[in-house]
Amino acid sequence: MSGVVRRHDPGRRGFASDNNAGVHPEVLAAIALANGGHQPAYGSDDYTVHLQQIFRRHFGERAVAYPVFSGTGANIITLQALLPRWGAVIVADSAHIFTDECGAPEKMAGIKCYPVATPDGKLTPEVIDRQAWGWGNEHRAQPTAVSLSQCTELGTCYSPAEIRAICDHAHELGMLVHVDGARLANAAAFLGEPMRRFTTDAGVDAVSFGGTKNGLLLGEAVVVLDSERVRDVAYLRMMSMQLASKMRFLSVQFEALLGGDLWLRSAMHANAMATRLESAVVGIDGVQLMRPVQANSVFAVLPREVSARLRKRYPFYVWNERTEEVRWMCAFDTTIDDVDNFADALVEEMRHT
Amino acid sequence: MSGVVRRHDPGRRGFASDNNAGVHPEVLAAIALANGGHQPAYGSDDYTVHLQQIFRRHFGERAVAYPVFSGTGANIITLQALLPRWGAVIVADSAHIFTDECGAPEKMAGIKCYPVATPDGKLTPEVIDRQAWGWGNEHRAQPTAVSLSQCTELGTCYSPAEIRAICDHAHELGMLVHVDGARLANAAAFLGEPMRRFTTDAGVDAVSFGGTKNGLLLGEAVVVLDSERVRDVAYLRMMSMQLASKMRFLSVQFEALLGGDLWLRSAMHANAMATRLESAVVGIDGVQLMRPVQANSVFAVLPREVSARLRKRYPFYVWNERTEEVRWMCAFDTTIDDVDNFADALVEEMRHT
Amino acid sequence: MSGVVRRHDPGRRGFASDNNAGVHPEVLAAIALANGGHQPAYGSDDYTVHLQQIFRRHFGERAVAYPVFSGTGANIITLQALLPRWGAVIVADSAHIFTDECGAPEKMAGIKCYPVATPDGKLTPEVIDRQAWGWGNEHRAQPTAVSLSQCTELGTCYSPAEIRAICDHAHELGMLVHVDGARLANAAAFLGEPMRRFTTDAGVDAVSFGGTKNGLLLGEAVVVLDSERVRDVAYLRMMSMQLASKMRFLSVQFEALLGGDLWLRSAMHANAMATRLESAVVGIDGVQLMRPVQANSVFAVLPREVSARLRKRYPFYVWNERTEEVRWMCAFDTTIDDVDNFADALVEEMRHT
Amino acid sequence: MSGVVRRHDPGRRGFASDNNAGVHPEVLAAIALANGGHQPAYGSDDYTVHLQQIFRRHFGERAVAYPVFSGTGANIITLQALLPRWGAVIVADSAHIFTDECGAPEKMAGIKCYPVATPDGKLTPEVIDRQAWGWGNEHRAQPTAVSLSQCTELGTCYSPAEIRAICDHAHELGMLVHVDGARLANAAAFLGEPMRRFTTDAGVDAVSFGGTKNGLLLGEAVVVLDSERVRDVAYLRMMSMQLASKMRFLSVQFEALLGGDLWLRSAMHANAMATRLESAVVGIDGVQLMRPVQANSVFAVLPREVSARLRKRYPFYVWNERTEEVRWMCAFDTTIDDVDNFADALVEEMRHT
Repeated sequence: MSGVVRRHDPGRRGFASDNNAGVHPEVLAAIALANGGHQPAYGSDDYTVHLQQIFRRHFGERAVAYPVFSGTGANIITLQALLPRWGAVIVADSAHIFTDECGAPEKMAGIKCYPVATPDGKLTPEVIDRQAWGWGNEHRAQPTAVSLSQCTELGTCYSPAEIRAICDHAHELGMLVHVDGARLANAAAFLGEPMRRFTTDAGVDAVSFGGTKNGLLLGEAVVVLDSERVRDVAYLRMMSMQLASKMRFLSVQFEALLGGDLWLRSAMHANAMATRLESAVVGIDGVQLMRPVQANSVFAVLPREVSARLRKRYPFYVWNERTEEVRWMCAFDTTIDDVDNFADALVEEMRHT
Repeated sequence: MSGVVRRHDPGRRGFASDNNAGVHPEVLAAIALANGGHQPAYGSDDYTVHLQQIFRRHFGERAVAYPVFSGTGANIITLQALLPRWGAVIVADSAHIFTDECGAPEKMAGIKCYPVATPDGKLTPEVIDRQAWGWGNEHRAQPTAVSLSQCTELGTCYSPAEIRAICDHAHELGMLVHVDGARLANAAAFLGEPMRRFTTDAGVDAVSFGGTKNGLLLGEAVVVLDSERVRDVAYLRMMSMQLASKMRFLSVQFEALLGGDLWLRSAMHANAMATRLESAVVGIDGVQLMRPVQANSVFAVLPREVSARLRKRYPFYVWNERTEEVRWMCAFDTTIDDVDNFADALVEEMRHT
Repeated sequence: MSGVVRRHDPGRRGFASDNNAGVHPEVLAAIALANGGHQPAYGSDDYTVHLQQIFRRHFGERAVAYPVFSGTGANIITLQALLPRWGAVIVADSAHIFTDECGAPEKMAGIKCYPVATPDGKLTPEVIDRQAWGWGNEHRAQPTAVSLSQCTELGTCYSPAEIRAICDHAHELGMLVHVDGARLANAAAFLGEPMRRFTTDAGVDAVSFGGTKNGLLLGEAVVVLDSERVRDVAYLRMMSMQLASKMRFLSVQFEALLGGDLWLRSAMHANAMATRLESAVVGIDGVQLMRPVQANSVFAVLPREVSARLRKRYPFYVWNERTEEVRWMCAFDTTIDDVDNFADALVEEMRHT
Repeated sequence: MSGVVRRHDPGRRGFASDNNAGVHPEVLAAIALANGGHQPAYGSDDYTVHLQQIFRRHFGERAVAYPVFSGTGANIITLQALLPRWGAVIVADSAHIFTDECGAPEKMAGIKCYPVATPDGKLTPEVIDRQAWGWGNEHRAQPTAVSLSQCTELGTCYSPAEIRAICDHAHELGMLVHVDGARLANAAAFLGEPMRRFTTDAGVDAVSFGGTKNGLLLGEAVVVLDSERVRDVAYLRMMSMQLASKMRFLSVQFEALLGGDLWLRSAMHANAMATRLESAVVGIDGVQLMRPVQANSVFAVLPREVSARLRKRYPFYVWNERTEEVRWMCAFDTTIDDVDNFADALVEEMRHT
């Protein structure tokens, strides 16, 4: 036997990130089910083949999904598929691809970003227009795509109409639209809409669909919404170092997530925990909620020493060092007790301000 | 429940690739053990922290390991760490990084490859010298690294002395040495040597250590053998889209593999199956073994129609369309019966030539 | 004979760009002087060798100059020399490298830009601090350089003290400093200081030194101010497609420019013409000067129809389509009559508002 | 006055490179003619506009020319225009783009090269087939272009029929064809054919047309032979740092070269000088001519000490350190006396073997 021992406390959870959660039991069971015997590598296995119809159910008949390892990988592949060599992408300056991918768009794919400031992480046609110009001017990297995050990095969600407006505007200007959907399920849960309503039906061209933050061991997918318009993702995935050899184990996780309602159950639960947390702290004197709680995160400002003491008891991140804004993130496995105990702890620490 | 059903026959195995095998049960058990509760993402978890000492045990006190998703990812990260912007790498023209990574070295990292022909996939100082020249000439991408595969793509293994000779030669010329070790364990099993004997002790600078082909669900590692000399891999890993958020699940797999002797048991078994297969077919008239069987693959030439019929019964790859050479690959889960039945089937099909 | 005929009116000049001017007669004479016979290609010629001491006279004893074709080329080479693979550069959002190079930093060199808003095109330590953070965080492309333009794209100049403050701040934070000096001579002319006062002496690490806008046929130079600290530019120049084969003809132009005082004479003249233009239009009702006139450009807002009619008589650019701000640029060959006639034409067109 | 003095002996010429020659007097005169006054920068000037019809005369009605700075620049731009992100180019292993551009294809444009060995620097359909395979296999960078050099780096020329055969073969396989024509004029002079006969008419898709080696100060051109099929070169030129601001001075040089017969006169002369040199040395005992002399270079093997002594008197390059093969290159300005004196010197030095 391998002699591996458990090194962590499986009963301990914090509010740092949905990435800190583990694997949903149903997902782990699915992995075990797909194990044993030989299956063709690199995506010709039975699970990956079957997966396409599941994604088509969610994203429409022309959708094609390419499982990959990471959200950054999904983003970079998709942007390469959407952009010519001389293209640039307009993004919110809070977007993950601009701030948190160590320059992968620029360094791996030569993609220029035009970041634009937004109050709440959300693009609009007007905001996009601040960089959507200079067509035909060879001195300007041509803005040929828009990338938006649903949910945004600030926990806000676009309505279907908002995304439709962006897509219409972008397409009119000859730009394609990418959605960074690391938490797309949480947006669907908040909006009460099927995912295709605010992607395929709204005119989006391609999605980075996130699984990891919603209970997979690891797994994201590039989802091309119209395979006639966006091609050659297979080559881009391989050259971008995102082609899994034992792909059955990625695909069967997605099947567990999307074949039934696990994706929605988990997302609704995480969102509900964030709402519960919001309710529990909204009235606490000295704690200021900073943004609408729409998905699974709560942003707040609280006294620096309280924040520091509380972080020792429950891990969470300071989102902005300057403003002392912190982020509390709930996951598929956050419990009611977790939330209530955390709120109690906050109240307790606030007393010693 | 997720409603996922098994879509494949877990009793069916072929000889196409060790990538077609699944997850070793001890590895899957380790994943389950690491599940539950929250653990810091991106490598600050208890399993990844602990993993370092396991890798140091195998590769020496100055080794640092960075788990990543894929072998191509490990290779590209490592080469970026070893090469300046103007550098080039000398490789066998059969090397995975030159032939099978869809141009990832060039496209993702701007790395020029100088491929050199070898009879058996193995570099030597003499072969390296065919491209190791032009120092200081600004018109020539400077060959500043050598990359060798252990085992090679042709199933051959370098002896510790052969690698030492390459490293000495390379270092004398100011070049660093990378080992693509997708099947490093199989080489160790063949050589009967600890891995450090033909890496760290032989002067190698960095290794792409492979786990997937040896029974992991997925997982490779960039192993820097002297962290004083090769730096900043953390940034390169992230910008190369190879940083796992739920890294505990990569790390615990490596712990299962390397913490005890699973790595060696599995590799020895796969090698033994290849040797058994060699013995079973060596005397068959009309079947020609092409290369020494040292690791877990057997290369053979057989009549085209026999090959075609046999492939319908047991999947395997035609390695070279022109010469009709085929590759039979054994894995950790290949059984004695698999080998014997396959050899019987081969004999049977040969009768109908 | 080649039968080439003159196709343009050599007496016609406008205010569109100093790039629209031709070659200074002394520069053309120098080219002719360097012609004839054979000289080693790629920089081993007598003119390029001699050029080093001229550049050292201007930029100090540790300076090394590398002539290149274009300003964008100089910028991209220099930034590659200053930045590690995972590096990013902080720039004004009006900087040429961010707005006017068709994404060359990102696309050719994988360099991420962190653009920051500035009122007047000038960085300050405070403005830089908006992006100078996140050290050691592998998710963030590390800001390892600052790039400032002297003069700025808005015609403003940094004082030596301002540049010194930026360099001190940057160096303290571990960042290097690049100066895009496409119009460095115009800054020197405005400041009344030798160029080294606000480059080498102020702590700058490398300069893109511009010749084309100051009367060369074509020619810019990467000037490394301390060749101990910034290395390997020769390889970067070649691989960045900026190595001239007949380099003597670049170098002799720089000798003509910098060997005596032509650089300063030309720049002072261009600046003086801009100042004269400023004086001529400052009192015109309905014409608003937008920025301090420090170098060779004047920025103004005037009625859209006046602007359109005037542009038909004298070419110039609309700098900002939204605000209708226009830019009038003077060159080494702009005459007093050019300025006065242009001002008269403006007055005339304003009458028909 | 600028005080520039002549530093070299304009009467001294060697056999090192046609890049060592200067500017043809007619070209210098054309530059002077285009000087004076203002002309729009970046290619909207009267000379560049007019240039298009000159190139169309040489390359057909659908040709479009983009002047650039350097041959490497022209190659990299063209390959970017011909190749998708996942593409690779098949080249002779002696090709300039593979051996002499410091990795610019890989480093600047992410282009993978598949080098193939050739006896004489020339590709054939059969040679190309060694790498023209693997279509649709995502693990293999797709060979989507072929690049050949006319003349080759070894001084050999393709016949129109040979190029036609390559183009037909390439197109059938879905690959485009690039010609590196740094010495295209020398090939035309040798073949006695107009350039379009072995480019446009033979099916070539795009050419890097060389001017510098044929008497320009500097200047090459990307020539797209069918502007319907190859697009967006303008963006690629700018982002590849190859857009000249004062482009009139590039374009007027091309007009001097191509408007009349200067291109052919100069190339024929250089070729004739090489033929004369060949004749003069062919009978010298101990000097072995290595390759057919078709263009303006002669390759020979001679005793190492003779070579060394001779190089001190007349600069030339050792082409291959191992075999001691040297290259003698003639230029537009090589004289009969130069050749005869050099041959005499060779005879003289051979006497002291």
